[in-house]
Amino acid sequence: MTTAKRDTYTPETLLSVAVQVFIERGYDGTSMEHLSKAAGISKSSIYHHVSGKEELLRRAVSRALDGLFAILDEEPARAGRAVQRLEYVVQRMVEVLISELPYVTLLLRVRGNTGTERWALERRRDFDHRVAALLKAAAADGDVRGDVEVRLATRLVFGMINSIVEWYRPDGRGMGEREVSEAVARLVFSGLRQA
Amino acid sequence: MTTAKRDTYTPETLLSVAVQVFIERGYDGTSMEHLSKAAGISKSSIYHHVSGKEELLRRAVSRALDGLFAILDEEPARAGRAVQRLEYVVQRMVEVLISELPYVTLLLRVRGNTGTERWALERRRDFDHRVAALLKAAAADGDVRGDVEVRLATRLVFGMINSIVEWYRPDGRGMGEREVSEAVARLVFSGLRQA
Repeated sequence: MTTAKRDTYTPETLLSVAVQVFIERGYDGTSMEHLSKAAGISKSSIYHHVSGKEELLRRAVSRALDGLFAILDEEPARAGRAVQRLEYVVQRMVEVLISELPYVTLLLRVRGNTGTERWALERRRDFDHRVAALLKAAAADGDVRGDVEVRLATRLVFGMINSIVEWYRPDGRGMGEREVSEAVARLVFSGLRQA
Repeated sequence: MTTAKRDTYTPETLLSVAVQVFIERGYDGTSMEHLSKAAGISKSSIYHHVSGKEELLRRAVSRALDGLFAILDEEPARAGRAVQRLEYVVQRMVEVLISELPYVTLLLRVRGNTGTERWALERRRDFDHRVAALLKAAAADGDVRGDVEVRLATRLVFGMINSIVEWYRPDGRGMGEREVSEAVARLVFSGLRQA
């Protein structure tokens, strides 16, 4: 195989390069010139694949959002007591966050200046509401403590989960996906204190 | 009192304006020109108070760091079982974060490009280590669960607490400092699940 690197370029590899550049420079601070340099292909080659940087952003955040929404369709998220469905969703959220780390990182940094960003924020809010509804159902079942308001609890739990993008690095030396997702589920549902 | 606004300028009010500008534009993206415009005073008036924007950054992050470190010297953080001292520290961290919201927000965004930023990151790490040591002591006492690694638990708890800067707004309509700090202490130590 002596194929030159540029010949093997696919929309998938271009997307993965673009996401790194968006994270490093910020989406607003990234030009097609930056993307072209980072990918090592010409701007016209990029336009062969996508209409511009906003399409790359949409594809990137879609990958994160699709991964998160897919959790809600999985069997253990749909059947059983709300508290158990919620625990499953929390643990899977951590797994998706880690397996799609750059895409979720980008999603969490979206601020809403373009149509695509506003759409992404809207879908994030939808997802948050779906999880909050599960928490509310678990509280109605009496399985979740009643002395912390549902909206506040949702924000704090999302805060803990989303903070993982700040320090998790998939370098093989550190913690595995499963160790982190189990730790989050234990802390969120049972807390630090030894029962 | 007919004193013009510029005459009442103090280092304190200048600092509070600078912190807002740093948060909005990023520290790197802020010039003395931006600070002068936002404060409504000339650059030379600013230089009358401080040596430049790095001194303003140092004062701002010092205010956040001093508030956090002061917690560790408070009586309930120093005496008693480690788990109770830890619970006190967690609750007070939330209170300091809320009462010094812009200063802590800025501290959490520091990235380490200048000497002052590296110094701030170093002091943040010191603080994190002091809290992690408390968690370790509580685990050694058998008061904290042993199935979540101390460093991971510390990161997740800090993640939950620090995420508050992303949504908390002191507008009088929302949640109070006490409601949030008690919710965090309950979730961190006892978890969501109804015992």
